[in-house]
Amino acid sequence: MIEAYFRKKSALIDKALAGYLPKTDRQARSLYEAMRYAVMSGGKRVRPVLALAACEAVGGDVKRVLPAACALEMIHSYSLVHDDLPCMDDDKLRRGKPTCHVKYGEDTALLAGDALLTLAFKVLALPVPAAGNGFAARQLEAVQFIAEAVGAPGMVGGQAADIAHQDGKPDLATLEYINIHKSGALIACSVRAGAHLGGGNEAAVKRLFRYGQALGLLFQIVDDILDEEGYAKLLGPAEARREAAEVCGRALEEIGFLGKKGATLAAIARFVLERKN
Amino acid sequence: MIEAYFRKKSALIDKALAGYLPKTDRQARSLYEAMRYAVMSGGKRVRPVLALAACEAVGGDVKRVLPAACALEMIHSYSLVHDDLPCMDDDKLRRGKPTCHVKYGEDTALLAGDALLTLAFKVLALPVPAAGNGFAARQLEAVQFIAEAVGAPGMVGGQAADIAHQDGKPDLATLEYINIHKSGALIACSVRAGAHLGGGNEAAVKRLFRYGQALGLLFQIVDDILDEEGYAKLLGPAEARREAAEVCGRALEEIGFLGKKGATLAAIARFVLERKN
Repeated sequence: MIEAYFRKKSALIDKALAGYLPKTDRQARSLYEAMRYAVMSGGKRVRPVLALAACEAVGGDVKRVLPAACALEMIHSYSLVHDDLPCMDDDKLRRGKPTCHVKYGEDTALLAGDALLTLAFKVLALPVPAAGNGFAARQLEAVQFIAEAVGAPGMVGGQAADIAHQDGKPDLATLEYINIHKSGALIACSVRAGAHLGGGNEAAVKRLFRYGQALGLLFQIVDDILDEEGYAKLLGPAEARREAAEVCGRALEEIGFLGKKGATLAAIARFVLERKN
Repeated sequence: MIEAYFRKKSALIDKALAGYLPKTDRQARSLYEAMRYAVMSGGKRVRPVLALAACEAVGGDVKRVLPAACALEMIHSYSLVHDDLPCMDDDKLRRGKPTCHVKYGEDTALLAGDALLTLAFKVLALPVPAAGNGFAARQLEAVQFIAEAVGAPGMVGGQAADIAHQDGKPDLATLEYINIHKSGALIACSVRAGAHLGGGNEAAVKRLFRYGQALGLLFQIVDDILDEEGYAKLLGPAEARREAAEVCGRALEEIGFLGKKGATLAAIARFVLERKN
């Protein structure tokens, strides 16, 4: 059931994303091709789907959130392109296909990442005619907290901390810092953006944000269990499983106030806890 | 006289910039140091000074524009850090000091550039309490046109076109495309942002933007004359000089409507035309 929800929403997102990504440009052809290649490459669209689900949970119209959802996926894509570069993880393959720099060269991949991050902020700032008065102020707040979540105080800071501890064995506190920042921050702010731009009141947005923070952590713990890395290595698989179940419970608790309207978000959390790959 | 204006305004900008750049962070120390190193390194602050001058030209309060001015300088700094990377120009020195990646490593320099671009958008979206109602809408418009000017349709596109023509000899049309996008777009949008956030009306912002576009081109032509590159090579130094004088005249014409209020911007254009290094 939740798979059907993902299929339906990700089709909507893919269509909107394609509309934001120009096919080509006479003078900078490879750049545009590399941007498209990085974004339109079969990702699961977890972050934008979360944004749309959070919007619906507060009773909002997804049209208000769809541009921001696309922006969040562009940010995710840029972070993967830069992460894969030789000076970072030096990965040659992603989802079974050559990484962006293998296909287009390091220089073009670097620029494509920069351009996707920049385009994301442009899309966040585009007028949303259907949204009515006062929406500009909400959009501006979203620009602010998304930039905070994916910049030095968030995602980029997590990557930097990860690099700093690459050679040593990080302790649990460091591991949590890295996870919360490197991958958790973008997931949490996707939920926050969906609830905020969907028109949720301050208290609802706050609780949904905490759901998103728990969900971000849950993703990472389950990843670690499946890859026998990080948490699973440090705590042992049984203890990591227990931790995952507890974090999932925390996520569900935060959205209890939504009642039936929280069903989709609850199903997503359970799906993340139970996934096998 | 214009030198004194630059000294005064750039001191204001340096102080504000330092305030936006945290000194350090326990888990990501090098990242924060690299960000600071890239920004606080004796740049001339041309772009933010232009933003403040354009604000004053339309009778605006510089406090409304100072955050955006800092954001524009962060964007300029990020572009230099990424441009200097080994996969791009592979430069070892900038302003007589080791480039960011030489000092902090390629991975940290890449992330510092990413974090500066992201911080720029956060700063553009910060509330400006002194600015009053309706300013959020103007800020959102600024996020939009700045992202356009420095993304794939602007600065990054210019860099991509530059790379694409590195091995061949670009013709005049390609050279102009590269110049207008790679360096001109950020200069033009700095003037535009200053006038727009300073409260200028639509017609004034439009003419100031065109002044900025001419000024951006003028910068590049004079650079080329001084370096005996690009325009100067293609047109010959005498013809390039004539072209520079004409472009400067166009810039001055656009701000004629400002009368005495345009004196600083006019002095900047003349200064750029006559500079010897």
